[in-house]
Amino acid sequence: MPAQIGVTGLAVMGANLARNFARNGYTVALHNRSVAKTDALLAAHGDEGNFIRTESLAELVENLEVPRRVLIMVKAGAPVDAVIDQLVPLLEPGDIVIDAGNSHYEDTRRREAALAEKGLHFVGVGVSGGEEGALLGPSIMPGGSRESYDALGPMLEKIAAKVDGEPCCAWVGTDGAGHFVKMVHNGIEYADMQVIGEAYDLLRSAAGIEPAEQAAIFSEWNRGELASFLIEITAEVLGHVDARTGKPFVDVVVDSAGQKGTGRWTVVSGLDLGSPVSAIAESVFARALSSQRDQRAEAQAVLEGAPTGVGLPENFVEDVRQALYASKLVSYAQGLDMLTSAAGEYGWDLKLDEIASLWRAGCIIRAELLKDIAKAYAGGARPANLLFAPAFRDAIAAALPAWRRVVATAVQLGIPVPVFSSALAYYDGLRRDRLPAALTQGLRDLFGAHTYGRVDAEGTFHTLWGGDKSEVAAVDTH
Amino acid sequence: MPAQIGVTGLAVMGANLARNFARNGYTVALHNRSVAKTDALLAAHGDEGNFIRTESLAELVENLEVPRRVLIMVKAGAPVDAVIDQLVPLLEPGDIVIDAGNSHYEDTRRREAALAEKGLHFVGVGVSGGEEGALLGPSIMPGGSRESYDALGPMLEKIAAKVDGEPCCAWVGTDGAGHFVKMVHNGIEYADMQVIGEAYDLLRSAAGIEPAEQAAIFSEWNRGELASFLIEITAEVLGHVDARTGKPFVDVVVDSAGQKGTGRWTVVSGLDLGSPVSAIAESVFARALSSQRDQRAEAQAVLEGAPTGVGLPENFVEDVRQALYASKLVSYAQGLDMLTSAAGEYGWDLKLDEIASLWRAGCIIRAELLKDIAKAYAGGARPANLLFAPAFRDAIAAALPAWRRVVATAVQLGIPVPVFSSALAYYDGLRRDRLPAALTQGLRDLFGAHTYGRVDAEGTFHTLWGGDKSEVAAVDTH
Repeated sequence: MPAQIGVTGLAVMGANLARNFARNGYTVALHNRSVAKTDALLAAHGDEGNFIRTESLAELVENLEVPRRVLIMVKAGAPVDAVIDQLVPLLEPGDIVIDAGNSHYEDTRRREAALAEKGLHFVGVGVSGGEEGALLGPSIMPGGSRESYDALGPMLEKIAAKVDGEPCCAWVGTDGAGHFVKMVHNGIEYADMQVIGEAYDLLRSAAGIEPAEQAAIFSEWNRGELASFLIEITAEVLGHVDARTGKPFVDVVVDSAGQKGTGRWTVVSGLDLGSPVSAIAESVFARALSSQRDQRAEAQAVLEGAPTGVGLPENFVEDVRQALYASKLVSYAQGLDMLTSAAGEYGWDLKLDEIASLWRAGCIIRAELLKDIAKAYAGGARPANLLFAPAFRDAIAAALPAWRRVVATAVQLGIPVPVFSSALAYYDGLRRDRLPAALTQGLRDLFGAHTYGRVDAEGTFHTLWGGDKSEVAAVDTH
Repeated sequence: MPAQIGVTGLAVMGANLARNFARNGYTVALHNRSVAKTDALLAAHGDEGNFIRTESLAELVENLEVPRRVLIMVKAGAPVDAVIDQLVPLLEPGDIVIDAGNSHYEDTRRREAALAEKGLHFVGVGVSGGEEGALLGPSIMPGGSRESYDALGPMLEKIAAKVDGEPCCAWVGTDGAGHFVKMVHNGIEYADMQVIGEAYDLLRSAAGIEPAEQAAIFSEWNRGELASFLIEITAEVLGHVDARTGKPFVDVVVDSAGQKGTGRWTVVSGLDLGSPVSAIAESVFARALSSQRDQRAEAQAVLEGAPTGVGLPENFVEDVRQALYASKLVSYAQGLDMLTSAAGEYGWDLKLDEIASLWRAGCIIRAELLKDIAKAYAGGARPANLLFAPAFRDAIAAALPAWRRVVATAVQLGIPVPVFSSALAYYDGLRRDRLPAALTQGLRDLFGAHTYGRVDAEGTFHTLWGGDKSEVAAVDTH
């Protein structure tokens, strides 16, 4: 019996995806550069389903039914290209090569185009849910040709996370769309964690609420509109006591977080697309700042400290919850705006309701909220911004007074809330009739003849600042 | 008589640099792809000095003294490579190719390495000051080999802006260092303009001060610690009345500013280097948001508006001035931090006092402040952060109460101040003993086994969250 799918690259993620396929009844051919890993997997989990052991890519390919499906799960970058180069000569037109790693969508676009020329399908698949998700049901975001999904989609849907029986897997768009959507998921994840951190810091530093008590607060929050995996595990982490010291676990952990990878890519893509993902950017930069430990140590000794005697608003805990929720909505709005911009840029027909649905389970940002986001875009509704959907417009309007109080209080107390305040600045900027960008344009025209538009006339203009300051029609050549 | 320098690419910037050389006594060979531009330059300005007209790159090169110096001023990107490819076969070892355009420093690094293999010097030069600066004295930031500067530097110093007789030109470092420094200059320029815009918006929208009156305020500010070219021209732009309508000029300009180019590159490099240039990023994203005109129009109709009845602090105008100054200091600190990170990454011996000195005149961000920044790094002083230098530590401490009042007021009034608030969050984050990144690390360890450090032990650890929650030593393989 030939296998329905081959998996090459059997580190934890690859091994768990292979097991997930086998546990769902598929015959899975296995390959790894060092055969020891293949044997270790078979020894530990060989009884979970039908596996075929192979020792080379050629042997892997020989054991697959046609069209062949080969899933690559190796480190993003050059290793993916290396595997592809070895695989391609072994395949026939119509076969499907799947990259389930964290590849950059531009690499995926390049690889898809190259393999399409040979008649092969190349499918970049975003997979979220970590090691446990890979085994038990991840959120799956496949790109590639629509045609490839006919042969591959049913298998992916089978192994994906489910919500009320519906799989968290659907074809999202051509070429790099799957990896792009996964990247944006991760960017939102960065912001999600940072706003939780800001809420925790405020409750701790402003209101003096210890981690154990906060665990109860986050558990309570997890029963309301914030209900989500990350809020749930925040309660777990804050409730955990370090066995070695008897202190709250969070107090013994070094407060430096890395920022390499998909969070950074999201910000770069936002810049490229002209999509203002400022709150996501602040969450990435908050990690960068946390990692500058030497500067931070010196700053504590040198820089003027925080003021004291600033009173807290009544109902501060509830205010913080609302500020967290509103800031979270903004980071989702920014992420979805990037998807809209990217759809235009790359010709993807991204369906935001389906994408939100994919994120309802299996992935790190899974949340009740995503059901409401899916609803906001359902039935052909296409709000130009998530915040314009009536449900979210109303939610943010309700949270707005508390949000403003929290940011104003944090600013007065010297507690940094970079994403709370950035998200609020985005909201206030978005709804503003006139922005000071008009002044910026005036300055740029003065020092660089960059020209400007007029509110009352078509065309592009330049003022003769060094002359009689009259205005001339201009062609912008900059 | 052979020419000391050849210039190819005679659009306004190239033509003005060529004229600047000639007006300073150098003989300049001229070349342009279409000879009409060369002839137009000679017809209009041929009497300003010694020019040699040429019709091909070969003829240009023939007319140069040895070592030959050829300055390229064409559009960044592929056109630079195209000119280089044509030039290289015409040159001999020891000759110097100069790219004075806005090239990305990674391109400059690549080109420098390629030409070094052929024994040629390639010098990427950052030039700031716009068209007028190019003619009358720009700020010049040359990279490339130290050796090339011996043959080229004196000429560049001659045409550069001067402060008290000292040229705003000095060798900044090898290969792409010059273009990197210029890029950071432009990133700071983005933030500089944005903080001016936020101050203007607050004075207008919160305090009701009309542009004409603000022109007087900015002129007044220009006599104090904010004294700078951009503050000076802000007064000029705000004082300008539109002839067509009789309205303040700033009110007839479309309030959308573009963000392609060096500002964006600065943010991307900050991400790559792990340097938290959050205030610069907010200034770039503020432009992106301003350009989303359709969304903004819809938002005004849909989103909850600003609250009313928020009182202003006493001395609000002075408070805004101090908030502007403090935010500006942070954006400079972030830009200089990037330079420090880049020096480590690329092996550049960047001298921050010299770089600050280069920016004192000729360029867009020229300001009195830069003299103080140069002093802060003079004589081997190397504060790890600009804000740690005593003069700036004290300045920001003095401004801090006003800065907090302004941001808190803006937040309550619904006036977006993304850079004022981001800069304050950076300041408060930098000086904080514990950041919520510890919680982030706990969450990442729980869902992805990403591991964490402990404050009281060396090594990397992982908690068995799914098991008995004991802690194990770990090797971080992520």
